[in-house]
Amino acid sequence: MIAKGMVGKKLVGDNLQIASEAKRRKLENPNTINATLGTLVNEDNNFYTFKTVDKILRSLENDHIYNYSSTDGGEEFKNAVMNWVFREYLDEIITNFKYQVVATAGGTGAVSNAVFSSLDSNQTLILPNIHWGPYNNIALASNLNVEKFNMFDGNHFNINGFQELIYKVAEKEGKVTFILNDPCHNPTGYTLSDDELLSIIDIINSMENIPFSIIYDIAYFDYPVTRTNVREKFKLLTKLKNNVVIHIAFSCSKTFSIYGLRTGAQIILSKDQNIVEDFYNSSVYLSRTRWSNIPRAGIQLLIKLYNDKKLYAKFLQEQQKARNILTMRAKLFIEEAKTNDLKIYPYHGGFFITIACSDGKKLFEALKKDDIYVIPLQRAIRISISSLPIACINRLVSKVKEAKKIID
Amino acid sequence: MIAKGMVGKKLVGDNLQIASEAKRRKLENPNTINATLGTLVNEDNNFYTFKTVDKILRSLENDHIYNYSSTDGGEEFKNAVMNWVFREYLDEIITNFKYQVVATAGGTGAVSNAVFSSLDSNQTLILPNIHWGPYNNIALASNLNVEKFNMFDGNHFNINGFQELIYKVAEKEGKVTFILNDPCHNPTGYTLSDDELLSIIDIINSMENIPFSIIYDIAYFDYPVTRTNVREKFKLLTKLKNNVVIHIAFSCSKTFSIYGLRTGAQIILSKDQNIVEDFYNSSVYLSRTRWSNIPRAGIQLLIKLYNDKKLYAKFLQEQQKARNILTMRAKLFIEEAKTNDLKIYPYHGGFFITIACSDGKKLFEALKKDDIYVIPLQRAIRISISSLPIACINRLVSKVKEAKKIID
Repeated sequence: MIAKGMVGKKLVGDNLQIASEAKRRKLENPNTINATLGTLVNEDNNFYTFKTVDKILRSLENDHIYNYSSTDGGEEFKNAVMNWVFREYLDEIITNFKYQVVATAGGTGAVSNAVFSSLDSNQTLILPNIHWGPYNNIALASNLNVEKFNMFDGNHFNINGFQELIYKVAEKEGKVTFILNDPCHNPTGYTLSDDELLSIIDIINSMENIPFSIIYDIAYFDYPVTRTNVREKFKLLTKLKNNVVIHIAFSCSKTFSIYGLRTGAQIILSKDQNIVEDFYNSSVYLSRTRWSNIPRAGIQLLIKLYNDKKLYAKFLQEQQKARNILTMRAKLFIEEAKTNDLKIYPYHGGFFITIACSDGKKLFEALKKDDIYVIPLQRAIRISISSLPIACINRLVSKVKEAKKIID
Repeated sequence: MIAKGMVGKKLVGDNLQIASEAKRRKLENPNTINATLGTLVNEDNNFYTFKTVDKILRSLENDHIYNYSSTDGGEEFKNAVMNWVFREYLDEIITNFKYQVVATAGGTGAVSNAVFSSLDSNQTLILPNIHWGPYNNIALASNLNVEKFNMFDGNHFNINGFQELIYKVAEKEGKVTFILNDPCHNPTGYTLSDDELLSIIDIINSMENIPFSIIYDIAYFDYPVTRTNVREKFKLLTKLKNNVVIHIAFSCSKTFSIYGLRTGAQIILSKDQNIVEDFYNSSVYLSRTRWSNIPRAGIQLLIKLYNDKKLYAKFLQEQQKARNILTMRAKLFIEEAKTNDLKIYPYHGGFFITIACSDGKKLFEALKKDDIYVIPLQRAIRISISSLPIACINRLVSKVKEAKKIID
């Protein structure tokens, strides 16, 4: 009875589902390690709340929580988003690009709107072979093809593999849409170097007749650990030509630790004003017909933070503390992994570290028996260090080593 | 460059856009009447907050506001939704139907998921000629056809027109999907009588070989004014046979006055367990790929209300007060309309009253010149009495009369 396009569409082994399982298990055994989700947890194993954020949200007037917001978020919100994302490089961005902003239901909503606006069914979405699981579901929900290139060549981005696939899809379909999840790639934590991003830009610039839609997912960009010039790198994008639209997917969930408020934004950048308008109209249309408008409280949070320099400065300090915690955990984790001969993918920042193995699902199941929950990938497991207090790292790493010995 | 399916999709004259315009104007002229949106406003012209709701929401722990919820909302939420919607008739419903619940981004999300799960592009969504505007956009976003029947035959539901169109679409496409917005229809406030709903059920039951997907939008069901047996009427649905799935779209925005929290639910009812599972899987899949999960605070509100009998009873009292205000406004409005020879559609409850005219857009523009904002329909205007204090009714009605004289 259901639409043909939705036959057999069932969410299996989804991150949020595994996280729920881990949560239930933790109620039975408090020693359960839940390293599944990309949410910040403090060293006491409690949900990490930024005090500045909480203060603003809990003092909002009723109208600013309970009343509707406008579908695109409104001018003040859009302005706050542009300023937050580009900060000292904003002028350079808006001098070089036409732009628009649409409020979205988290980063997911931004990616989803951008994908759906870019491709018709049976066209191809390009992904690296290691990626955030739901990208695949987003593509399948619109009945798109997904083609993947090997993300790594040794310890570096596989620019040749990327180029080959771009050429192939461009030749076949006359247009190219791909997701770039950078900096602090989910699940590996990899951040493209300037040179790598420039190589990608060179390839695109050598194909001026092909329309390019780049979905640039920056979900974890506020949590860099080693490669930290994440905002400066946006300047490189200005080298792109008129045949390109960039959809920056910004997740307020991650930046402000307000996952449950479903706030995000799609920033549309292009040198062609018509392209920006088309994608803006399309995205507003999709938003109105899917979720109507996003939670007003999230919108007000960004506006208030932007308008209050003291609170803004205070929040930056708080976020630096969170980054410090993440940095300590990452450092220890990487050391322990090395000591235990576990191969991890190159990590430069963000909430996750990924351990390579022969069979992610088997390793996931084995760890579950020890009440350790991670996210299985094909030939790897993803560990959320954002939700892994330092005291738990040693136990997790040794258990992974034990389990791997049996499986590999 | 955008997907072919999204070419030319631009939101024009949308309710939320007109409401924003009215809000901006009100900042310049405080006497502006904003009767655009379906949001409750008290007699002092301020946003209507239920104290019980506000108390619960403002005392939620951080984790219950800022952390993720599960995509379908979780068992406690689903249970609270079923109990709220069916109340004393719950047993009868779950004895007769298999069921599932999916948390959605407001009532819009429920309607959107149900439509997208039911129809493939180029198939037909059936609507009455008078309907909530975004239904049309939801259909167009999925590239569906929309076919409409005249909703009224005199002062009653046009059962013959409905039947004719159902037959036509069933013959052509072999399946039928329609939206039933009842009780307290938006925009007219019409509520189907038991006999009318039974006639609809008889027609469907006479076509046992045709799969029927009924999207039952009950957004305003908690605000009946004259026909008040809104929950009892659900019992009639149990007469439907195995060829039917009912998607009840429940809007927590309206029921709890928390529009900005984007909370709602899709209740899937069918006598066929496989059908329920298919639509549940499809809807969870769509949710995960569009908005991921809905605001945790909204989910917690329903759970807390359901688990605390005192707060529950208190909220029911508060809601009765809101209904009383609405009833007073409706009574006065209908009297004034009668005195001024304005033809309104039959009103039985809900947030809106609709005045017939020769050209809704012209009347809308004329009223705007007097700083009165309403929603234009084709041959009518929609007045939100939910946001129209008693003191404003007389001015609005006389201005409509004046403007109509010139236009009609």
